[in-house]
Amino acid sequence: MRLSTGFVRASGYAHKVRRVLFALTRKKVDPREVVRAAGELNQRIFERLQELGVEKSDVIRITVPFRIEGGSIRWDYEALNIEVYRKDEEKRLAKAMEEVEERERELEEKIKAIEEVALSLKRLSDELIEKIEELKQEHTSLKLRAEE
Amino acid sequence: MRLSTGFVRASGYAHKVRRVLFALTRKKVDPREVVRAAGELNQRIFERLQELGVEKSDVIRITVPFRIEGGSIRWDYEALNIEVYRKDEEKRLAKAMEEVEERERELEEKIKAIEEVALSLKRLSDELIEKIEELKQEHTSLKLRAEE
Amino acid sequence: MRLSTGFVRASGYAHKVRRVLFALTRKKVDPREVVRAAGELNQRIFERLQELGVEKSDVIRITVPFRIEGGSIRWDYEALNIEVYRKDEEKRLAKAMEEVEERERELEEKIKAIEEVALSLKRLSDELIEKIEELKQEHTSLKLRAEE
Amino acid sequence: MRLSTGFVRASGYAHKVRRVLFALTRKKVDPREVVRAAGELNQRIFERLQELGVEKSDVIRITVPFRIEGGSIRWDYEALNIEVYRKDEEKRLAKAMEEVEERERELEEKIKAIEEVALSLKRLSDELIEKIEELKQEHTSLKLRAEE
Repeated sequence: MRLSTGFVRASGYAHKVRRVLFALTRKKVDPREVVRAAGELNQRIFERLQELGVEKSDVIRITVPFRIEGGSIRWDYEALNIEVYRKDEEKRLAKAMEEVEERERELEEKIKAIEEVALSLKRLSDELIEKIEELKQEHTSLKLRAEE
Repeated sequence: MRLSTGFVRASGYAHKVRRVLFALTRKKVDPREVVRAAGELNQRIFERLQELGVEKSDVIRITVPFRIEGGSIRWDYEALNIEVYRKDEEKRLAKAMEEVEERERELEEKIKAIEEVALSLKRLSDELIEKIEELKQEHTSLKLRAEE
Repeated sequence: MRLSTGFVRASGYAHKVRRVLFALTRKKVDPREVVRAAGELNQRIFERLQELGVEKSDVIRITVPFRIEGGSIRWDYEALNIEVYRKDEEKRLAKAMEEVEERERELEEKIKAIEEVALSLKRLSDELIEKIEELKQEHTSLKLRAEE
Repeated sequence: MRLSTGFVRASGYAHKVRRVLFALTRKKVDPREVVRAAGELNQRIFERLQELGVEKSDVIRITVPFRIEGGSIRWDYEALNIEVYRKDEEKRLAKAMEEVEERERELEEKIKAIEEVALSLKRLSDELIEKIEELKQEHTSLKLRAEE
């Protein structure tokens, strides 16, 4: 398999790597392993970007082959490839990618708000089940959880 | 402590014992122990009712002292008391208790229907959390469960 | 049709009339009409109980025929029948009905608590829908409510 | 005020206009008016793009001033500005914007799935409230909706 980030600002490569890896390995790899493997790869990319003198607002594109072995992700670092497009030379591309990053931040805020409501819903539905169980215990002969 | 069933049809004493015991020991005893202890007492009561020749539609009233020791319920069987009111002699009482039992059955049906909706709600809120986690994994840099 | 309260303490006849009427007319009569008709009948019963010198802890049993006409409930007051069992003469029946009333109060508390959780769940699910609509508006091309 | 789409593929300008307009006018303008006004502007932009011979995969950037008057959005068409970047000349920009569009489609699928679960949750919480109301009607003296 092969991970390809597409164009992305250097400032955001790490998150992009992780997202793409999640999409590629869904249902094949445990989420914790995805987080770990993305972290490992990102460290390697970070070092290369340092060597290349890449700045946050430059645009890059990363590809790297990998395979899944026994539930683990193994990167083929030999074949890791990073293209760099300097902001000075690719002004519009850099600006477009900056806009994309800004939109993503707004998206994240909304998703975070939705997640909070969803977590409250879950807590309440748990509380509801508890209260119904109590009602069943004291006012019915219905089968209880303690009898299962 | 002392469990008292109040008036109840012989047909429904076992459930009544359990309900009253749940109400008396709430937050003090584990539900499984309540179920166990009620079962134990009910077996003893059942034998006595057999000896007394009590019929299902007779009305009875049971009291029995108990104590809680190390999370367990211990019945004082020596002091177990069962009053019996034969249907023939207490026609109206027997009829009234029969009506109560009928109402309880209707109540149970409604509570069961509510519980089913509540369980579906819980399942859906779990599914929602899952789908939001997936959205976060592939489209955001928000903190994931796999990072906790 | 015929409404029959079964045995009930005089203190609780009004609620019992309403509950039984709801059960008898479910899906046939609007809830507001049930509330109105129960109120009308209960006023008439109240006057009779006054005349009969019934006390709160006496037990009564009420039957009254009615018919549904154009969505309205019409009582046949001519055939209204109230049996009275004085507490002094029917001690055990009066005590049993008192216990039933006590249990109902406990049941109501639990149902009220469940209703509050359910209402919170409803509010949260509305809020969730709102937030998702906002997300759709600003981050997707999905069909909006404003387009329906 | 001023709407600015940022860089966007010509194929996706209409949705981008609407999303940006929603974000700019949130809480100031009714969603239906946002949909209407976006539609009106998009029609005008569409005509210009035709005249300019812009293709779907070209990248454009649109800015247009507007004001809100009495709840309505008024476009200043005189000042409408469309920059065009042909795919042949800005290959990387065009490719980057194509990737963005692809990601958005994936995002939409996930949001749609989340919305469906949320709508089911809402329906279930409505059903729960109904069933609890029924329980209250037939088994309690709690205040009913029909009494409000």
